Amino acid sequence: MGSDMSMTPQLQLEQEQFLKILTREDALARFEAALFPRALPRETRKLADALGAALAEDITAPVDVPPFDRSNVDGFAVRSADLAAAGEGAPVRLALNGETVHCGIAPALQVAAGTATPIATGGPLPRGADAVVMVEHTQPAGSEAIDVRRAASPGQFVSYAGSDIARGEALLRAGTIIGSREIGMLAACGLAEVTVARKPRVAVISTGDELIQPGQPLPPAAIYDTNGAIVAAAIDENGGEAIFLGAIPDDEAKLESAMREALTDADMLVLSGGTSKGAGDLSHLIIGRLGKPGIIAHGVALKPGKPLCLAVCDSKPVVILPGFPTSAMFTFHDMIVPVLRKMAGLPSRSDAKVSATVPVRIASELGRTEFVMVSLVDGKDGLIAYPSGKGSGAITSFAQADGFLRIDALADQMPAGTATEVTLFTPHVRVPDLVIVGSHCTGLDLVTAPLAHDGLTVRSIAVGSLGGLAAARRGECDLAPIHLFDDKSETYNTPFLVEGLELVPGWRRMQGIVFRKGDKRFEGLSAKQAVAKALIDPTCIMVNRNQGAGTRILIDRLLGGARPEGYWNQPRSHNAVAAAVAQHRADWGMSIAPVADASGLGFIPLAEEHYDFALVSARKQRPAVQAFLDALGSGESRAALERAGFRPA
Amino acid sequence: MGSDMSMTPQLQLEQEQFLKILTREDALARFEAALFPRALPRETRKLADALGAALAEDITAPVDVPPFDRSNVDGFAVRSADLAAAGEGAPVRLALNGETVHCGIAPALQVAAGTATPIATGGPLPRGADAVVMVEHTQPAGSEAIDVRRAASPGQFVSYAGSDIARGEALLRAGTIIGSREIGMLAACGLAEVTVARKPRVAVISTGDELIQPGQPLPPAAIYDTNGAIVAAAIDENGGEAIFLGAIPDDEAKLESAMREALTDADMLVLSGGTSKGAGDLSHLIIGRLGKPGIIAHGVALKPGKPLCLAVCDSKPVVILPGFPTSAMFTFHDMIVPVLRKMAGLPSRSDAKVSATVPVRIASELGRTEFVMVSLVDGKDGLIAYPSGKGSGAITSFAQADGFLRIDALADQMPAGTATEVTLFTPHVRVPDLVIVGSHCTGLDLVTAPLAHDGLTVRSIAVGSLGGLAAARRGECDLAPIHLFDDKSETYNTPFLVEGLELVPGWRRMQGIVFRKGDKRFEGLSAKQAVAKALIDPTCIMVNRNQGAGTRILIDRLLGGARPEGYWNQPRSHNAVAAAVAQHRADWGMSIAPVADASGLGFIPLAEEHYDFALVSARKQRPAVQAFLDALGSGESRAALERAGFRPA
Repeated sequence: MGSDMSMTPQLQLEQEQFLKILTREDALARFEAALFPRALPRETRKLADALGAALAEDITAPVDVPPFDRSNVDGFAVRSADLAAAGEGAPVRLALNGETVHCGIAPALQVAAGTATPIATGGPLPRGADAVVMVEHTQPAGSEAIDVRRAASPGQFVSYAGSDIARGEALLRAGTIIGSREIGMLAACGLAEVTVARKPRVAVISTGDELIQPGQPLPPAAIYDTNGAIVAAAIDENGGEAIFLGAIPDDEAKLESAMREALTDADMLVLSGGTSKGAGDLSHLIIGRLGKPGIIAHGVALKPGKPLCLAVCDSKPVVILPGFPTSAMFTFHDMIVPVLRKMAGLPSRSDAKVSATVPVRIASELGRTEFVMVSLVDGKDGLIAYPSGKGSGAITSFAQADGFLRIDALADQMPAGTATEVTLFTPHVRVPDLVIVGSHCTGLDLVTAPLAHDGLTVRSIAVGSLGGLAAARRGECDLAPIHLFDDKSETYNTPFLVEGLELVPGWRRMQGIVFRKGDKRFEGLSAKQAVAKALIDPTCIMVNRNQGAGTRILIDRLLGGARPEGYWNQPRSHNAVAAAVAQHRADWGMSIAPVADASGLGFIPLAEEHYDFALVSARKQRPAVQAFLDALGSGESRAALERAGFRPA
Repeated sequence: MGSDMSMTPQLQLEQEQFLKILTREDALARFEAALFPRALPRETRKLADALGAALAEDITAPVDVPPFDRSNVDGFAVRSADLAAAGEGAPVRLALNGETVHCGIAPALQVAAGTATPIATGGPLPRGADAVVMVEHTQPAGSEAIDVRRAASPGQFVSYAGSDIARGEALLRAGTIIGSREIGMLAACGLAEVTVARKPRVAVISTGDELIQPGQPLPPAAIYDTNGAIVAAAIDENGGEAIFLGAIPDDEAKLESAMREALTDADMLVLSGGTSKGAGDLSHLIIGRLGKPGIIAHGVALKPGKPLCLAVCDSKPVVILPGFPTSAMFTFHDMIVPVLRKMAGLPSRSDAKVSATVPVRIASELGRTEFVMVSLVDGKDGLIAYPSGKGSGAITSFAQADGFLRIDALADQMPAGTATEVTLFTPHVRVPDLVIVGSHCTGLDLVTAPLAHDGLTVRSIAVGSLGGLAAARRGECDLAPIHLFDDKSETYNTPFLVEGLELVPGWRRMQGIVFRKGDKRFEGLSAKQAVAKALIDPTCIMVNRNQGAGTRILIDRLLGGARPEGYWNQPRSHNAVAAAVAQHRADWGMSIAPVADASGLGFIPLAEEHYDFALVSARKQRPAVQAFLDALGSGESRAALERAGFRPA
């Protein structure tokens, strides 16, 4: 929690443990060595419920399939020798035997020389017959005989007993994952149930006083529990059965009791949160009391994911994931999924990889293997891997990435232009149809909605106006949404275009001062009056914007060189400004009208910002770009933008 | 069921319909046009139950994530301007404010100039602060102050409100499949439930008097219902909810009542069986009465799958699959899955494709697009696609294939050596570690069992001894199991080896006469006596073996030129011979001792057959081949072979 805490023996113990950091490979090897080999619990399931499960034992075919010599066509069971001389001009007449072999009925009569027995597809060949002739190749000769004008080879149109599956052959091996095809083979042999590996039951506990479960109202300073839901879902996706036990507050007795109870029933326990060095992080102190050998690794030279804690308590794995969502998910997939799949009897996940180039320099920490979540887009010379700029504290870093790249522990960066390998999160990469890189606006979602509903994939990567322009110049996107103000010409966007880019007008966003409704200091004032008033009130704190933002230029002009309280609080978005004011971190700032509305803030309009698009001319004829331009110009989009508080250009 | 049936008006109607055969593309287009567009039924699900479902509506982020400006580290909330002059030699002292910001607790005190507030990872930044310094970069100065020796940039270690997910942005689009990553995004926004496309309920009916459900004993002439289970499983795999209604006998009133009842509740009905021209095939006659427009396509120029019937009854799809398992599954995947996935709100399946060469000529029927199921193995110059020789009547043709290749309707064959494209059934092709092509023996399964349990994949393709030798010469396999008798030298196998192949001795299989126990004609005789007796008994029928089989040479020697009844009944396996005798199709034949045992037949031993392996010398050093050779020589394998009735060489 603070420096005061670093004095406690507990924290010192922790810090010592942090020093004994293992490599990723070392940690995983020790974890697996403590867990395997082990017997997999098994259970018997009905065939219909076995989809996706791993067979627990070899299965030998108990019967022949087909179980008898079977006709493959509708026709007549014959003796091929009778038809040896048959031909177009030399029909052979066969007398019909007095039965018709239907499916499911065993023939009673023998096919003697010179005779034939009518037989349906699937019917068992009668004694004496060695071939079938198709009904189409015969002519009736009265009601009791047929003429045949073709020779028949022995075995013609017959599937012999056991030709599909032979009794005694190895049908399926232990470990096979049962899909519909395996179910077909088991059913064909008459097997109605199978013994499969039982799914490992994995208890999931979130820890932290600040966590609120989704669906509940969010008190101030609290956050929704993201890791509980995502870890439980990832367990289900990887062959486990997740048992989510909710969020337990940072109370040692309560947490220990919850962990002990979880382990009585579950095969594995995963906690998330509780591995930072804060005072509330008790989980790993408790693990030592839960069983032997206890903690295997606490601290792994892995980024994201360093605070990962791996333990084995009385042969059950106990894992404490890092609290940050992307750290939690990345370490779960990298370090826990292999163990979980093994416990479920599943083969290791086969990760697909693709080659891609990084468009920007990526800094990395020396001494830790670093994994960077990336989004893939099509470039001129192959795939481009955009690093997520949001960091491991963001759920979207993981959730919106296509995969990740790896930076070696010995490297302190990956230079722009590096060709590298990206491990995909899904077997196929689907490069988006439309790539938009630049500044994001909720208005953009309204314009792209019809494209998405028509099945086009739209990827919007938020890197700000300048980042978008750079990507457009490199040809990495179709469109770069920008709102850049040129101080000299006092115009938006156009002065920033270079050759190969053209301007597509978007919409106007009214910028203005936001303040909490009811704040008497600002009600009824103009923007200039409001700022003048704020500047003379020492209790009044502002929230600024980041350098480079068009809004920042407006603010600096209004301030005229003043640096009031809060000037250095410089978030990067209109939403963050509104949140700071709404939550009393600041008293005023500059945002846009729709955001002020959504946050329930007062708003003093000042000037319109131009949100336009730098279009990469070379990509203009692509169908998705045309679809975007159509959508942008449509009456529906314009009406939706107006309803949301934007003014279409 | 034979030619007599072709006279009925019903059958004439059917045959007319068969003539109006549509192309595959035409049939699918008409089917889809009759079904789409359509509203997808939707339902609300809890987040934890939504895995794998398709979102039914766009979701806009209702909150900012994080909801406040958050500290990313354990440390102190500060004003960056206070630390502008800080450095190693110039510490700045900050007075600690009288609160510590824990997660979940809103700060009460402002960070005024010259002060700092202890803050935990995840804690909300207090008013006045614009950066966080890590606890590691500070020293305590008494209990009420800290010294800081580094400058802090504005926003350092802060995640601003909305920087992960901004309130009002498009979070997820309708149609998105919910995986763990999407669940994370929804949970982060506090959403506890989502509206998703409801799974289409698909009723499955098998038709046919001969069908027995797995788990029941199999009467003579009956077969297990394979299609019911496999279709139901394939429906579940593709986003539907299968409701299996069992096998309905070929009774028009019963079947119509079952179909009507199924359609009152289900969104779709799939029948299998009942599309051949036999009398029992009533389903499609009934469809016309179930609703408009009725049958869309009956007969598609597709192989396997020609008798497929597609109908729409009052806007619900009704499908009759061909009765043969591979035909049923192939048409289901090719023609029904696209419709089912669309009804489930799922994207079309993205089939992976690979290039491969066909090692043998594949004959094809002119005028029908033909799909050939293939197994893939590694060859010298890339993948080799082995066609399944078993035909569409076999479940294993489909179930054991890696994918399929396509032969155009205008081609009557695909020549050996053709490079072609194979569509995979699973996203990744896993080329087997050990490839065995030749004659199959249940003893082989015993030898390869330990390899399979060690995670090596073993593929055994049964093409007979001669086919195996050819594959080995072409370098398409590691080992070819053979049992070829050289009449001249009176030895097994060795005379057939060519350069590049070496013999690995396998085991001996005792061949002999099989007969039904209790058959007085054969009890107690030698093989020669038994054959002599059979030859003089006109009621006694034999079962022979195929030309080329080693066993056939033995039989012909025993017969000494005689051609008794049953001589032309020439199945290709020891199992089929045993089944023919057990089922009274024949009275005697030649098989091997373990098969006679398993079938409960009497056995008169005659001569040992040598089941050996032609090893491709160039592949001998491969780890899987070495593992096979080790297993073959192991005491465990030898004991298992002996227990099963084989004699290790």
